[in-house]
Amino acid sequence: MHGMKIEDFSSKREYEIFERAKNQILKCGMEFKTYVRKDYLELDLPNLNDNISDFERLKRHIKNHLNCSNVFCRLPILRKIPQLLREADFKVTITHIPRGVGKTTIIDIEKGDTTDKIYGVAVDIGTTSVAACLVDLYNGELIAKASSGNAQIKYGADVINRIMYSTKGNGLQELNHAVIQETINPLLNKMYMDSGIRKEQVVSFVTAGNTTMSHLFLGLYSNFLRMEPYIPAFVKTPFIKASELNIEVNPETFIYLIPCVASYVGGDITAGVLSSGMWNTEDNILFIDLGTNGEIVFGNKEYLMTCACSAGPAFEGGEISCGMRASGGAIEKVKIGSDYEPIISVIGNEKPLGICGSGIIDLICSMMFAGIIDRKGKIVKNLKTNRVRFDENGIGEYILVFKEQYDLDRDVSITDVDIDNFIRAKAAIYSGITTLLNNLGMDFTMIDKIYIAGGIGNSLNIGNAVKIGMLPDIDQHKINYIGNSSLMGCYLTLMSEDARHKLEEIANHMTYVELSVDPLYMDQFVSACFLPHTDIEKFPSVKKLLDKSI
Amino acid sequence: MHGMKIEDFSSKREYEIFERAKNQILKCGMEFKTYVRKDYLELDLPNLNDNISDFERLKRHIKNHLNCSNVFCRLPILRKIPQLLREADFKVTITHIPRGVGKTTIIDIEKGDTTDKIYGVAVDIGTTSVAACLVDLYNGELIAKASSGNAQIKYGADVINRIMYSTKGNGLQELNHAVIQETINPLLNKMYMDSGIRKEQVVSFVTAGNTTMSHLFLGLYSNFLRMEPYIPAFVKTPFIKASELNIEVNPETFIYLIPCVASYVGGDITAGVLSSGMWNTEDNILFIDLGTNGEIVFGNKEYLMTCACSAGPAFEGGEISCGMRASGGAIEKVKIGSDYEPIISVIGNEKPLGICGSGIIDLICSMMFAGIIDRKGKIVKNLKTNRVRFDENGIGEYILVFKEQYDLDRDVSITDVDIDNFIRAKAAIYSGITTLLNNLGMDFTMIDKIYIAGGIGNSLNIGNAVKIGMLPDIDQHKINYIGNSSLMGCYLTLMSEDARHKLEEIANHMTYVELSVDPLYMDQFVSACFLPHTDIEKFPSVKKLLDKSI
Repeated sequence: MHGMKIEDFSSKREYEIFERAKNQILKCGMEFKTYVRKDYLELDLPNLNDNISDFERLKRHIKNHLNCSNVFCRLPILRKIPQLLREADFKVTITHIPRGVGKTTIIDIEKGDTTDKIYGVAVDIGTTSVAACLVDLYNGELIAKASSGNAQIKYGADVINRIMYSTKGNGLQELNHAVIQETINPLLNKMYMDSGIRKEQVVSFVTAGNTTMSHLFLGLYSNFLRMEPYIPAFVKTPFIKASELNIEVNPETFIYLIPCVASYVGGDITAGVLSSGMWNTEDNILFIDLGTNGEIVFGNKEYLMTCACSAGPAFEGGEISCGMRASGGAIEKVKIGSDYEPIISVIGNEKPLGICGSGIIDLICSMMFAGIIDRKGKIVKNLKTNRVRFDENGIGEYILVFKEQYDLDRDVSITDVDIDNFIRAKAAIYSGITTLLNNLGMDFTMIDKIYIAGGIGNSLNIGNAVKIGMLPDIDQHKINYIGNSSLMGCYLTLMSEDARHKLEEIANHMTYVELSVDPLYMDQFVSACFLPHTDIEKFPSVKKLLDKSI
Repeated sequence: MHGMKIEDFSSKREYEIFERAKNQILKCGMEFKTYVRKDYLELDLPNLNDNISDFERLKRHIKNHLNCSNVFCRLPILRKIPQLLREADFKVTITHIPRGVGKTTIIDIEKGDTTDKIYGVAVDIGTTSVAACLVDLYNGELIAKASSGNAQIKYGADVINRIMYSTKGNGLQELNHAVIQETINPLLNKMYMDSGIRKEQVVSFVTAGNTTMSHLFLGLYSNFLRMEPYIPAFVKTPFIKASELNIEVNPETFIYLIPCVASYVGGDITAGVLSSGMWNTEDNILFIDLGTNGEIVFGNKEYLMTCACSAGPAFEGGEISCGMRASGGAIEKVKIGSDYEPIISVIGNEKPLGICGSGIIDLICSMMFAGIIDRKGKIVKNLKTNRVRFDENGIGEYILVFKEQYDLDRDVSITDVDIDNFIRAKAAIYSGITTLLNNLGMDFTMIDKIYIAGGIGNSLNIGNAVKIGMLPDIDQHKINYIGNSSLMGCYLTLMSEDARHKLEEIANHMTYVELSVDPLYMDQFVSACFLPHTDIEKFPSVKKLLDKSI
């Protein structure tokens, strides 16, 4: 298998992490062999002396040539067989899913030899963003990529609001429709347009999402996720066909939804742990997914502990007045000079339309060091700049981009409320990490590496994330941004049946810690709602910088 | 299990045969245990310390209490679980299909204990008639019965015409719609009305039909059945859910279509062989199904040979001008006196509307002995009766019922053409039997018993069937009419998983003989197109009677 090329990745780091994860899979003796296979068959022609039925003939050939004595198929395939066999002069390619010893299920049958035309799709369903890629399963190459916002957003910014909406009237159906019909199918169709692949050729589908996204994807009642004792309907799904969910791939395609761990640690985390490779190292790895909400996993090949933080959607620009996803037009980097004037960098060099997660971190960090905000995050009054203003209620606002400059509808700015929201988000992450390590009797010195995953944006400035107190103040070389590890985990699962088994092992063995019942958590959270922290001694490198800047 | 009572059967003979078949199943060590089960479960209530998902909780309980570690379900069931568990206070009944060791598939979940409410349906899909029964799977009792004509009849009287229709435009969809939506579903709904059972409670469905009916039931292209080398698309179907075929039972119900043997020996014959018990005897049994077309099986516990005769639909009243199914209003018995006047017996003591198969046999036999027809079946001219008339082409007609007598739209009569059709039908059966036995190097003296099954009617007069040369002239005590053996086989399959395995064994082991390629067959057929036969020496008892009557 040729695999993905470096240019398929959003950063060199992402590529390196992927190559490492892939190599770890290979060095464990696992194969890059997909669980869906194609085989070309030349059947014996029927005659009066060999007049067994078409399906028995197919089964006999498969038994003799592929060593499978138990061959299954569903009615739509059976319906295709009689005419197709004859049109193809009994030379056909079957697409099938071997499972167990000597068992396989035929999910498609085509005329002639099409063994080199086999495609799969990986989809990461985020609360805010959905990202997909179309993969050539024959050689592992990436054929197309697409991403967009999750159309469910109109029904609520975070999972709690979505769940609440789902319990009302047709809410559940609307949310299910929004993610499948209004989000995933348009992404698939865009990739088909870009690549010329037909949807019938897509015979493998792997997707991951947090537990709420997973429930809504399947159209499952999810209200019990948010009510104590926080019980998901499932963590591992039964066999589901694409046609049952109206997903626009081959209708017989098996939809593999990556198993969740608990109500607030979903399949996206399982997939992320797989692609991070932390399951195969002796180092203590801290894995942080900064999507809508934040999930944390700590461990190595021996153990994996996980928890969820109620961080909300701020890392993907949610609940921030000018926030947006890390896509074209998003301000992804910010620096502010001593004159309070900002220097910005915009994704795609487009007009600045808003700020994504990495931009907000930079902005808050710069405002702190420039003295625009105090360490509670409040905008300081009486600064000599036209970029700061206050409304009638005394809520401060810093204007990053004046609308006139780019002919925009409104200024791109950040308010006291936005900053407060973001501080609570970063505090949730920091206190989550602290509580999880405390639970294990460990501290930050025992962390060998931190992997940051999620939709926060490729330009995440790790140093700034430490300076605002989101990440612990450890050697920054130990901290890496690894991009959309969930999508990468989906890709690995698509390409390797062994990786899929590993994934299920990971999901089964991860230990979930419920932060909300931990008596320490709330204290930790409150202490972290400060820049960088109420106890500056926890951030010695930041203390040094702040001392210098005063 | 209490089983079916004698009053559930159309005749004492049918009951006796059934009791014997059932007892043979029991004495072989097979159980009357359905393959669909219900189990009542009281799950542990979830709490913060035991917060596994609903589906895992269900699986854990099933593993601990039912010893199944592999539990499957489909999406619609998963969708029911979260709310239903809580409404039921975690006390539920699952309907499931155990298969293999430690595996089961949940097909329904209900509140509380409903283990004693479990129902199944057996359906015999004949080319002309469809018969169904609703069974209490808890105790084996028959809850309701219904039958009607097959609504496909408007598209053709026999399988060849149906197949030809199915290849035109939407023909296949129309035929599939006719048998399911216009025939089976109305029968089901009638039984639900009669019994008060809800369709959701019906969780098992067993059906049998000839190979063409089986193909059309599944909506499968069937043209290759009628073209040399006569290849069916399948003989054994894959897993099919009721919802895939829009059958009005519980949508998750597994549709079990009894396996066929070859293009012209279908699942109705496999089912008939099962219920006849011939698979468990040392006697040589000749099994004859007189439906639309006739199928023959000869054998015992050691071997089973089968063939199909192109008899057409005459035994069910098809292609006979006043022919009809054996239902209310059908003349089922006829005697003709020396004055050419008939005495008739009508099903349900209703107005005579037409003649069913058993009535036609009686009628032709009586006409022969009364001298109304000659031994070629031609109506004799110049008889002193107003019951015989001829049209301008010289086609004779015998009026069985004058329309004025019962205020009918037309006379009930039989014509030379009808008689000719019927003689060809009976000749097909007789020559089929002869050819099959010849193939085995055997003759009629080696037949220990003949079972006649099929829609010919309960009043079949065995003696008359021999007299017209349809059945061989052997001791008539050896010949028994066993009713709808296909429906009975479906019932046994519904009630016993062991019987179902036996059935599959029967289908696998039956050897099909293709009569159309046997050089002897055509000669045998031509010789049999006579009353009783061109060689009267083959019918010594009939010869004696004819000699007497002259």
